[in-house]
Amino acid sequence: MTATEKRQRRRQRGSVDRADKKAAIEQLAWSLPIYSDAPVEPASPEIIEKIHDTSLRVLEEIGLLFLNEDAVDVLRNLGCDIDQDTSNVRIDRALVLDAIAKAPETFDIHARNPERTITLGGRHVVYSAVASAPNVSDLEGGRRVGTRPDFQNLLKLNQYFNCLHFVAGYPVEPVDLHASTRHLDALYDMLTLTDKVVHAYALGPERIEDGMDMARIAAGVSEEVFRSKPHMFTNINSSSPLKHDWPMLDGAMRATKRGQAVVVSPFTLSGAMAPATVMGALVQQNAEFLGALVLLQAIRPGAEVVYGAFTSNVDMKSGAPAFGTPEYVRAMQISGQLARKYQLPWRGSNANAANYPDGQAIWESAASLNAVSSGHCNMVYHAAGWMEGGLCASFEKLIMDCEMLQQTIYLNQPMDVSDDAFAFDAIQEVGPGSHFFGADHTQRRFKTAFYAPFMSDWRNYETWEETGSVKAEERAHHVMKSNLQDYEKPSMDAAIHDELVDFVNRRHREGGAPTDF
Amino acid sequence: MTATEKRQRRRQRGSVDRADKKAAIEQLAWSLPIYSDAPVEPASPEIIEKIHDTSLRVLEEIGLLFLNEDAVDVLRNLGCDIDQDTSNVRIDRALVLDAIAKAPETFDIHARNPERTITLGGRHVVYSAVASAPNVSDLEGGRRVGTRPDFQNLLKLNQYFNCLHFVAGYPVEPVDLHASTRHLDALYDMLTLTDKVVHAYALGPERIEDGMDMARIAAGVSEEVFRSKPHMFTNINSSSPLKHDWPMLDGAMRATKRGQAVVVSPFTLSGAMAPATVMGALVQQNAEFLGALVLLQAIRPGAEVVYGAFTSNVDMKSGAPAFGTPEYVRAMQISGQLARKYQLPWRGSNANAANYPDGQAIWESAASLNAVSSGHCNMVYHAAGWMEGGLCASFEKLIMDCEMLQQTIYLNQPMDVSDDAFAFDAIQEVGPGSHFFGADHTQRRFKTAFYAPFMSDWRNYETWEETGSVKAEERAHHVMKSNLQDYEKPSMDAAIHDELVDFVNRRHREGGAPTDF
Repeated sequence: MTATEKRQRRRQRGSVDRADKKAAIEQLAWSLPIYSDAPVEPASPEIIEKIHDTSLRVLEEIGLLFLNEDAVDVLRNLGCDIDQDTSNVRIDRALVLDAIAKAPETFDIHARNPERTITLGGRHVVYSAVASAPNVSDLEGGRRVGTRPDFQNLLKLNQYFNCLHFVAGYPVEPVDLHASTRHLDALYDMLTLTDKVVHAYALGPERIEDGMDMARIAAGVSEEVFRSKPHMFTNINSSSPLKHDWPMLDGAMRATKRGQAVVVSPFTLSGAMAPATVMGALVQQNAEFLGALVLLQAIRPGAEVVYGAFTSNVDMKSGAPAFGTPEYVRAMQISGQLARKYQLPWRGSNANAANYPDGQAIWESAASLNAVSSGHCNMVYHAAGWMEGGLCASFEKLIMDCEMLQQTIYLNQPMDVSDDAFAFDAIQEVGPGSHFFGADHTQRRFKTAFYAPFMSDWRNYETWEETGSVKAEERAHHVMKSNLQDYEKPSMDAAIHDELVDFVNRRHREGGAPTDF
Repeated sequence: MTATEKRQRRRQRGSVDRADKKAAIEQLAWSLPIYSDAPVEPASPEIIEKIHDTSLRVLEEIGLLFLNEDAVDVLRNLGCDIDQDTSNVRIDRALVLDAIAKAPETFDIHARNPERTITLGGRHVVYSAVASAPNVSDLEGGRRVGTRPDFQNLLKLNQYFNCLHFVAGYPVEPVDLHASTRHLDALYDMLTLTDKVVHAYALGPERIEDGMDMARIAAGVSEEVFRSKPHMFTNINSSSPLKHDWPMLDGAMRATKRGQAVVVSPFTLSGAMAPATVMGALVQQNAEFLGALVLLQAIRPGAEVVYGAFTSNVDMKSGAPAFGTPEYVRAMQISGQLARKYQLPWRGSNANAANYPDGQAIWESAASLNAVSSGHCNMVYHAAGWMEGGLCASFEKLIMDCEMLQQTIYLNQPMDVSDDAFAFDAIQEVGPGSHFFGADHTQRRFKTAFYAPFMSDWRNYETWEETGSVKAEERAHHVMKSNLQDYEKPSMDAAIHDELVDFVNRRHREGGAPTDF
């Protein structure tokens, strides 16, 4: 048998026989992590109240543009004050408070594989790989525009890593797929290469409805069951300042009508699309979010809505977006306070603005990850692989981020506080001038004592140098390749797969979606 | 005039005329930072009590080796139970609680420049550059054994950066200086190239006494004033498990007798020199610390002692030390809880085990820095430049760490919560479809709105690539060089300088210290 034949044969024998195959890395098991420490809350209750109150004043006295007739109709029926010429909508605070009260504090999004269903809210946190980058890079292939093979490989990694819980969008835009039917092929890949919760874009009626149809087919449920609870989600960004655009509103309303979840993420970069203060940017973020929340709760009371927070700042000298800054940290932590005040799940990001998976990428990411973790973010977008302020998906950065995510997950697990862990007897047994390597207390814990990273090289310098002085990003490249080799496509019922293919083919024949967006 | 003459002339004109000289980087002003968030406290009061109680049992029932006759005499006089053959000392908990009660909660260490005096304890934090590394590296010169020029350059950076508050030891060991007189030349460099608080090693009576004499001379104070409050400090490590060695005890006692501060840092690597559980390693750390505390408080009640915490873990497969791990994070945070229980300042480290200033160095460092920050560490050793688990001082890592330290300091500063910061008027003025770049609200904040990093490259990828694709560690190398050019030697009174030189020369003539340690 050739090596390829052997691999094929092993693959055919299925998962039972794969136990003897040594995985390239040992990763943590799938889990839905729970924050164990108290959240960091930098804003006093008075400050939180002032952000809240000022954002209500923005909605009452200034208003938001809702550039969608159906949305305006809904808001008019609610009693909002509409400017017919501009579609500016002013919303009374009583309506806002009513919408907040209706929205659920926690909810599940059901994956096609029930074991991959995620819970949003409370002390839960879930992570996704990078989403919506136009470019992709790896050390071997360099930086390039995204295509379907890269898109698929990133999806495979999103599936492979147990520390990644959902798919927040296209990891990279597969621009070799025609724009009118791209969503069909992309959703097909997302639903077959992964069995985790997926997202569909709010870019016109066809795309979001097709996305929901495909998620329903993949879940193998009726339209009635599909509508009874979220099986996917979409995300909308306001066109800050103070504007919600047509396709985003359309997609959010369609998802809400069909029982699906919506993340509302104002794009409030402080100093550019929002005031040059953290407080001012948060006021605007909050107003833009709450305006959309009123709309969606009017369409379906109890609609599953996530408080999206994307507030960061720009470099005042150049206008360039910045992430992982002290301002970002505070904006995220206070967003968490606001979401908890409203008893809503919240979404943040593991963001950075570096151009290469180097120290900058990591210290900015570590600060971002610390920000969302310390603030108890429930849904972390771009948790692995984001670079260049979102303009590039980096394969190596994805691997290094997963190392950081695993450590964060592990850190939140309970410590061993059994009597034996305090080790009085072991300390007595070993005594001075000796060591604990051979102690029974140590041997009993040999395999499980400590977190085992897959990315750290802890050998001494001489050994590291002798073996080629391989840097972290180069190791990440090799790990990524072996992970892709280890990747296993999740199973899908043949009838469901056929139905999915039929749907994609039919919609291809129908021409997909218009491309005049 | 030649360029050198110009520079000399400019230097002679002093600081007034230097305002026109553009600094290579804009850094934060010198400050003594205060933690603004609540500390993260992962252990319940019951767990803290159990660590405390078990460590008291270790002292009472197992004991510690004190390999120093003078120390044993002191402890015998206190009423401790001494084993004459082994110098094992068992200490009653009443003595421990008494020592804890005597030790001060906060205190200052006075630098020769009064503006550089540091406060330890409470919510204060101070940082030092890397200390005690045998090797040094930079991208140009590679990795090498430390020499005086590297030692001096690292000291200059320790002085240059306002985010570095003290000198925790030799940044790198200057091995080209003869071991018998190295401490004299090294202390001379530390006291003249910096005006910050310095440390002297507890490596035999001559070294620590010379160190104290030189710190006294540099401060320009009498022996009486010197003894009245700490003007320097030393650090001792126990030889874990359960052993305090002669020179460390000797140095700690001498410093205590002369009114100086002592950091007691057990070297409790979990799985090697301490039990393979965080709780067990902390029990041992605590016992080893408290034993030394009893000794020092007996010598001088009220002696300034810092709770040193160095507990991390080893890689169980290889025995290699690891830092910045989840275990390290928890060990640091819980050490903070113990120090606060005892109302003592505590010392931690910004540690990592990477061999190159790459992503691993940064994610391990970021985790370590987050651990000590979230745990409210008062005195952070190795805050900038540590690599390879302490075996190497990296110039580039030092620069990148200073970027992270600055961001940590900035994050702890108060946010702008003035009425104007909430920006209602600005949001109204700008309105939808516009931006805040030109708004008066933004313009008024143009220079001070956001933290300005000196190490982040936020330009877009194309510009970054066109200008040479310079990675973070390469930028750090260039920043380091320009910082060394910008470095200004702090002034010292001529008479004090003469006295210092005379002291060094005399002690050189006398042969310095024995080298049989």
